[in-house]
Order: sequence, then structure tokens, then C-alpha cells
Amino acid sequence: MKFIRVNMTAMEVKVEEVPQKYAGLGGRSLTSMFVADEVKPTCHPLGKNNKIVFAPGLLSGTTAPNSGRISVGAKSPLTGGIKESNAGGSFSQKLARLGIKALVIEGAPKEDKFYVINVNTGGVTIEEAPQEIIGKGNYEAIKTLSGKYGEKAGIAIAGPAGEMKLAAANVSIKDPDGNMRSAGRGGLGAVLGSKKVKAIVVDDTGAPGVPIADQTAFSAAAKRFAKALLDHPVTGQGLPAYGTDILVNILNEAGGLPTQNFRRGRNEWANNIGGETMAATIKERGGKPTHSCHTGCIIRCSQQYVDKAGEYITSGFEYETIWGLGSDACIKDLDEIAYIDRAMDDVGIDSIETAVTIALAMDAGVIPWGDGKAALDLVGQIGKGTPLGRLIGSGAAVTGKVFGMTRVPVVKNQSIPAYDPRAVKGVGLTYATSPMGADHTAGYAVTANILRVGGFIDPLKKDGQVELSRNLQIATAAVDSTGMCLFIAFAILDIADGFNALVDMLNAQYGLSLTADDVTALGKAVLKAERGFNERAGFTKAHDRLPEFFDEEECPPHNTTWDFTEEEIDEVFNF
Amino acid sequence: MKFIRVNMTAMEVKVEEVPQKYAGLGGRSLTSMFVADEVKPTCHPLGKNNKIVFAPGLLSGTTAPNSGRISVGAKSPLTGGIKESNAGGSFSQKLARLGIKALVIEGAPKEDKFYVINVNTGGVTIEEAPQEIIGKGNYEAIKTLSGKYGEKAGIAIAGPAGEMKLAAANVSIKDPDGNMRSAGRGGLGAVLGSKKVKAIVVDDTGAPGVPIADQTAFSAAAKRFAKALLDHPVTGQGLPAYGTDILVNILNEAGGLPTQNFRRGRNEWANNIGGETMAATIKERGGKPTHSCHTGCIIRCSQQYVDKAGEYITSGFEYETIWGLGSDACIKDLDEIAYIDRAMDDVGIDSIETAVTIALAMDAGVIPWGDGKAALDLVGQIGKGTPLGRLIGSGAAVTGKVFGMTRVPVVKNQSIPAYDPRAVKGVGLTYATSPMGADHTAGYAVTANILRVGGFIDPLKKDGQVELSRNLQIATAAVDSTGMCLFIAFAILDIADGFNALVDMLNAQYGLSLTADDVTALGKAVLKAERGFNERAGFTKAHDRLPEFFDEEECPPHNTTWDFTEEEIDEVFNF
Repeated sequence: MKFIRVNMTAMEVKVEEVPQKYAGLGGRSLTSMFVADEVKPTCHPLGKNNKIVFAPGLLSGTTAPNSGRISVGAKSPLTGGIKESNAGGSFSQKLARLGIKALVIEGAPKEDKFYVINVNTGGVTIEEAPQEIIGKGNYEAIKTLSGKYGEKAGIAIAGPAGEMKLAAANVSIKDPDGNMRSAGRGGLGAVLGSKKVKAIVVDDTGAPGVPIADQTAFSAAAKRFAKALLDHPVTGQGLPAYGTDILVNILNEAGGLPTQNFRRGRNEWANNIGGETMAATIKERGGKPTHSCHTGCIIRCSQQYVDKAGEYITSGFEYETIWGLGSDACIKDLDEIAYIDRAMDDVGIDSIETAVTIALAMDAGVIPWGDGKAALDLVGQIGKGTPLGRLIGSGAAVTGKVFGMTRVPVVKNQSIPAYDPRAVKGVGLTYATSPMGADHTAGYAVTANILRVGGFIDPLKKDGQVELSRNLQIATAAVDSTGMCLFIAFAILDIADGFNALVDMLNAQYGLSLTADDVTALGKAVLKAERGFNERAGFTKAHDRLPEFFDEEECPPHNTTWDFTEEEIDEVFNF
Repeated sequence: MKFIRVNMTAMEVKVEEVPQKYAGLGGRSLTSMFVADEVKPTCHPLGKNNKIVFAPGLLSGTTAPNSGRISVGAKSPLTGGIKESNAGGSFSQKLARLGIKALVIEGAPKEDKFYVINVNTGGVTIEEAPQEIIGKGNYEAIKTLSGKYGEKAGIAIAGPAGEMKLAAANVSIKDPDGNMRSAGRGGLGAVLGSKKVKAIVVDDTGAPGVPIADQTAFSAAAKRFAKALLDHPVTGQGLPAYGTDILVNILNEAGGLPTQNFRRGRNEWANNIGGETMAATIKERGGKPTHSCHTGCIIRCSQQYVDKAGEYITSGFEYETIWGLGSDACIKDLDEIAYIDRAMDDVGIDSIETAVTIALAMDAGVIPWGDGKAALDLVGQIGKGTPLGRLIGSGAAVTGKVFGMTRVPVVKNQSIPAYDPRAVKGVGLTYATSPMGADHTAGYAVTANILRVGGFIDPLKKDGQVELSRNLQIATAAVDSTGMCLFIAFAILDIADGFNALVDMLNAQYGLSLTADDVTALGKAVLKAERGFNERAGFTKAHDRLPEFFDEEECPPHNTTWDFTEEEIDEVFNF
């Protein structure tokens, strides 16, 4: 395995042996340990001392189902803390098959010129980016790069938002159809932009592939693992049929669907924008209601959403984005939401952060509530780099500050996503305490709180939530290290053999004999490294708090508040 | 003495006895102890849980020379930490003569309507603000309020920037001529705006005045104190003749005048904008080259700067503002700078924060370097509340973030003022460590570094700077408690009897027998309370750092960098 360092100051590539301390790591465990080791916590996230690292998961590049996630890590321009964000697409599997454990980009060139990092069996080179893709939308830029580097090349790209170093810029990852997935959160696209790296292109033609210590054992375990995914009602039925957008009606029913900038947890138009409506619309129009974001995905929660003429609009059209625009910003039309989602992907901006920020702009009176056309125009302004566009592209915390607002749903400057913490209290603890800032995926307590996966813990009560959030955060840090899609968690929480099969795959691939305890230990070690980085960057327990308005305002229909004491919150990281 | 609480939620005024713990405090010591005691450190600074407190200094309202400063304290919307900002004008003396130790404003009304707090011998009332002053500039609003409440009424007012709750909004204080001084830093005008308090009006007609325990001793001490001020070359000659703008040529000569967003410490046009040119221009045009900002000021560093026709443009036209626009933003014409200064006063925005932010906007390419007309237009946009105007009015840290910049001269989100920390290293330590964020007045090491007041410590070397900054920060916290203008420090640092006379005045007024040690102990206690608040708000040593670019870029002409180690910086608060 190789450890690649691309130094953009010296314009130099070094191919190193994998340092011993990183040998057993992959995905998030590798990116976070690396950032904690090598990035100065007080550095400017857009300066030459930040480093951005791409690491395939431990199982990426193998035939393990759903193992194609790429982890991207750096100090975040949005939160100022450590960040790992992961995405599907074909990038991770290609890097892994080339034997690349991690690709690090450090330094920054003096010249104001963009580059492409070109990775293939011949090595890694830094090339000038084609001038015609600079400032262009991701759809066009990916097409141009695919034309130049091959249709099958994997691509990670910074869109116009990343070029402008906006704090909500994402890293977009090409999927097998030439469309996009996003390592969305925390502004990692801005870090890529600050290094003047427009894109990384990976061609694994002729790559050796991933060695498997015990192929027979691996195949058997992969089969058991696939069975668990297909057997579980969420991953086997709900997600393939309706995508993640199935959650709209579920959360609305539960009273936890934040509406109109978190003023209430339920609205009357949820069904217009929910997964059932989406699936029916796609079918009626001849789109694809189910679709894999990477080879080997058997959950197929993605889709290709099309217009009335059957033309492609967007894919990876997720619940959180639809919630942000459709419920938090009150845009009641799924087509309008789809065009905004496409525009956000095209400009390369996190769709959660941006949707929440659009709702704030509505709350501040910049555009009317629910006005999808005005919201689309705002996203257009991000791409154009107008002052207002740049502001929206800098995220909710900054926008809230500029408009003098007190109701700004962020933790560590990152927007709170689609589950009201007053009505889904377990996930609220995750928002408050995750080293990533508010992030549902960091400890998805919606499982036991709402979906009754992995047991049931009353979402409106405090009992059991601390342990739930803590255990899920630990488990997630480990799962995010495997390259596995987080949705496998549904199956492994409920089906014991699913979890065992996951561990068996790791053991068969690496010739190890890991146990469940080792997995837990890895998760804890990752969280501790992340939290340690944040502490050195200046974070304290005072940052592990939700905005004051959640304490003070009741959330209808349950009329609950956020009522954890500071001591209770601080127990989450007491391990 | 009375302790007034104005509750804007209940629309209720309570007149309380002064709590025993605050009996010996005034000015900054009172505001900071109060904020540390009563404001929840993690509260939203623009929410109802923040409190803003106005406290006259211990000597305010007496005949002590230069004792008319009002301290304003709250949690800062700019820094997120504790804030004390003080100003001249007639407000402090009038509050003190009414026997008011502190006026606290807490809570916030639900209704979107502005109020005036009216203070006189009859009591304190909350009245609806005259509709015609809402959204209007401070010059016009003060005129309207003076017409309504009396020409001699003291006024503290939030301008349009404060109404909009912009993080750099100041609190403007009417001076005896009906013009303005500013409690400029940290966005306290936004806190006033968030309480929906447009202005506080104080009429001390018929007030009892300040009781003096030993009038004879007080008068004798005041006389000695006045002598020290008049004997010292800075306060007796330099400041009255040229105002604070005398520093332009001095700092330029010293190579510490930050130019073009801190790219170098010297420029070729300094003399165009320096105090000598200003004084000559004012004299030639028939303005007032010297002027008191409050009754009893004998330094008279202010002026009335006029246009070619002799018409008033601005006063309190300070070095730091002129530096920010004239050197940092490269606007080479003093008249253009004067009109921008007037516009900033009129909109009610901190002129240091805004000038530094304008230089950033130039650096980001929003307007051309040195373009005074474009800069004036930007200030106009603050008043109009355009997205770009609101952004500029939110200060340098936010603006730098939105434009993806790495060279952003702020500490704790507050702009670094007019002395390059690489060339005036003592003041750099103050910027780094003051609980206020970057603030030259918090420990003005320019004294010994550049002016050779209170000894000499080589500004380009590290030796002795830690002790210098520490001692000055402690002394300043005490001086800021007396109501004294900070410029008395020049005299008391060099003339022993000046300091003794200050202590003697306090003892004669209050019937005490304080010593120099008591003054030091007070300063230390204030700093510890402030730092304690900040720690509870989430600040750590990681926030006591200058931006990275000062470490990495040499500052011509001396080509020095900021080279203190973290351990050395942390020694400043080791007491």
C-alpha cells in the first residue's frame, strides 16, 4: 500500500510507504488520526499549513457490498475543528485498487492557477487544469474531465464554490453514471480550492486490485453480510423503494420534522415532498426510482429524478436536502426542490448547510418564505460570487450573524440537519457533542428514537439518550473507517450476523482476528483523536451546546424543549 | 447611589440599592464584574439573556480633570467574549451627578418597536422612540432627541447599524457640542439594538451631584493631577496641538504603520494624513484644531475638522481611524477620510473595525485599493442594510471568511488596530491576550516601545515585552474604572506625583486610604473576572494567538516577524 503526498508548494509528489501507525487504519480513522498528527490545530484552514487527505475505507475496492465510501479529512473552514466527510461514487474503489492507502495534499502554490492531480498506474502527476472548466459548474466540468481522462475515471472535484473557498463548499465525487455524490459537510471543497486543486482524477485501469488474505472466507462473509442488508426492512425494502426521502412522512408523523427555521416539528404539506410522492413521480415520468451510487451497492437508495419530459434533473436526492428546502424553507414543490438540489450540486456546495441558510435568508426577509424560484436564484448567486451569494455559501452561522439573528440552528458553526433535537433527543446529543459539529450521521439516534432499529428509546424523553448517542458515535467512527455506507448500520444493529460478517470480512481481507471489542476500541480512539484536535484548536465543553433557542422555545406538536443539563450533555464523551 | 435595572421584557424599571459587592467599583471594574456575575457566558449576545450595563467611572461627575468616560459592558456580538468599551461625551458625568452607579438594560421586548430610556431627577422611564429617528443617521437623530429632551441632555444612541444588530455597531455618545464620541469596539450598539433601545437620554438638571468626603483634599489633589497632565509633553503639548493623529508620522518613522492590509509598516504618503497636516489644514480653514470631548478635559486632543468652506465635517477624528483608511486601505486624501469618518459615526459603526474591513474588501477586489469614494459608498451600504453593507458592518473576521481570505488581521474576531505587532511587539502581546480581543487601549505598550514613555523597551525585540504588556493591562483595567481618559497614563507613567494625585482624589472622594497596591489589585481582579467569563464562554489559550500570517510574513522595513512562542504569550496572564 502507498501513502501519496502531493506538495502544492513545491509542486512535488512523494510516494511513501504507509507509516506503521496508520497500517490498520482506513477511511475516517486514517483521515482523523492523520489530521490530528500533522495539522497544526490553530492553523488557518485555508492556509498552506492545512492538509487535506483522501482515504478509501478498509474494505474499499473489495467485493464487499456497499464498501465504496471515500473519506476526506482536513481542518474545517466551516467549524474550525477537525472534519471527516465521506461520499459514495467510484473514487474510493479506484484509489484502493491502485494500492493507495491515502492521498494527502499539502502546501499551496503561490500562483493563482488551478491544477488537476492525475492518478493512475503510472504514478501521480500534477497538471494544469483545463482552462475551460474553471468557474464552470460540476456537471460540465466532470464531462470535460471525463472526456480528457476517460469516461471511467474517478473524479473528486471542487466546484465554483470550492474555487471561491466558501466555507460550505463540498467535494463532489463522480458516480458511475457521470453524475455526482458529495462529501458535503464542513467546507472541504474550500480546502481543495485553497490548494488550487480543481480536481483529482483516478484511473485504475491495470491496477493490481486489493489483496485478500483469505478469499474463501471473505466471499462467504460478504455473502452473509449481503443477506443481512437484504433481509432488513430498512435496507432491503424502504430505502430501495423510496430512498432516504422516505423519512419525510415518518419524521412529520413523529413531530420531529423542523419546519420554517425550526419553529415547529410538523407541517401540512409533507406528503407533497415525501419519498412516496417522489417514487411515484419518478415512475410516472420514466426516471429511475432506485440506483446505486457506487459499484457493489445493494441498497440502491439513490434515484434519478427526472422532469415531466423524462429528462434527468438530479440524483442522490436525499431526505436532508428535501427537508431543508421543502420543510425548513417551506418550498412545497418537489420539482422546484429538485432544480435547487441540482444547482447546489453544480456549484459544489453542501446541500444541508445551504438549505438551512436559505431558510435563514427567508427568516431575515431577504426572500419570501417558500419561494423556490428566489431560492434557486440565491444558489445561482453563489456560483456568480456576488456578495450575497458568497454570504449564503459561507453557511448558516455567518449568515445568521450578518443578519443579526438569534435563531440560528448551528453547533460549532455547522447547520443542524433534519431532525428536531427537541423531538428526537438522542440525535440532539449527537449534534451537541460530535467533534464534527451538528451532524446526524455522526451518531444517528433516529434509529432507536424513531425507526425502532436497535431497540426503542422514547425520543421525547431524556432516559437512555446519553448512552445511545455515545454508543452510536463510537460505532459510527468505526463504520466510517471501513468504507461502508452508514446505512449498513440498520442491518448490523438488528441482525447480529450482519455485524459478525462485517468483522469477518475485515479479518479475511487483512489476515487478522479482530473482535467486536477491537471495533469499539477503534471507534473510541478515533473520537478521542478528533476531540483532542478540537481541544488544541480551542474548543471546550462550552461548544458542546445547542443554540439557546432550543432551550427556550417549545417545539409543536409535542411542545418539548431541549432540557438536558450541561452535566448530562458532558456525559456523552465520558468514556 | 442607585443601581437601575431596566427590564425590556417586562417594560419595567427597578431602582435598587447598589449591591455591596459593587460598592467600590465603577467604570470597567463595575461593568466587567457585573457581566461576569449576571450574564450567562454561553448566551446569544443578541438574545434576551445578554445584559448591557452603563457605568460612570469612580471619579466621573467630579471636578477631577478628564474623568468623564462612560464604560459600557456586555457580552460582545463581535468577539463572543466579555466587552467593555468606553467613551467621552457628557453622558457619564450626568449619570454620576444623578447618583447612578450603573444602568442595566436586560431582557428584550417581543414587539418590533424602538424605545428611549429617559433618565432625570424624576426617575427613569421607558418611552416609545420618536418614529422619525428610526433608521436615521446619528447626527440627525441626536438633533431630534436634543430638541425633544433638551439641548443639554446627555445621549447614548444606537445608530442604524445598531438597529440592524450588526456586530461592529457602536454606542455613540453625544458630546457637549451635540456631536459624537463612540464606545466603539465590540458591537455594543448591536446589543442596545437587540434590546430595542434606540437611545438613553440623561438630563441632570437639579441633580444632587457627586458627594466628596474631603473637598479640600480633593481639590488639592485635582490641582496636582492637572499639573502632571499639563507638564507632560504628550498630554500637555503633542495631543492638544495635533490630536492623536500625531502618531501617523511617528509610527511610519518607526516602521510600525500597517499599510495595505498589513503588508508593510511604512508608506510614502503618511505625511498627507498625519497630525501636522491635519492641524495645519484645520487652522487654514478656520476649524478648531483643539477641542474637549467632555467638560473638564484639559488634554483637548479632539478637534473640529472642517471642509474648504469651513463647514464642520467631523470631530474625534482619531489616529486609528485615519490609519485604517489612510494607510491600511491606502486612501491618501485626508478630506476623503474625514467624510468616511463622519459617515461611520453617522451610521454608528466602529471606525477601527470598519476601516480594517474596508481594507479587506479592497484586498478581496470588491473595490480598488485607496478608492475613498468607493469606501464611502460601502459605508453608505451599511446604513442601507444591503447584503454587502451588512457584511462590512459585521466586521473583518466575517468579511474575511466570506471572501475566503487567509490574511485577516483579527484576534478573537476583533480587528487589530494601527500598530503592527511585528514592529511594536509589546502591543502585539496585548492584542493576543486581552480578554477584549485585539485592542491597543487594553495595554498600550506603544508607550515604552515607541514613545519612550515609562521607559524604553526595544519594539523589535522580545525582551521585556511580556512584563510590559502585563503591567499595562493591569494598570489599564484600573484606570478604566476611574472614568479617566486613558491618555492620563502618559502623565502617570512618567510623573510619580500624577499617579499619587489620582489615588489621592479617589481617597478624598470616597473617604478611603487606598494605596498603589490596591489599584494594582483592582486591575488584576478585573482582568481575572473578564478572563473567567471568557473561559466559561469557551475561550482557551488557543484564542490568545495572532493570525498565522504574522508568524510567516516579514514586515518591511524591519522585516521582523511575530516570533513569540506560545509559552511566552501565555506568560502575560500568569499573575
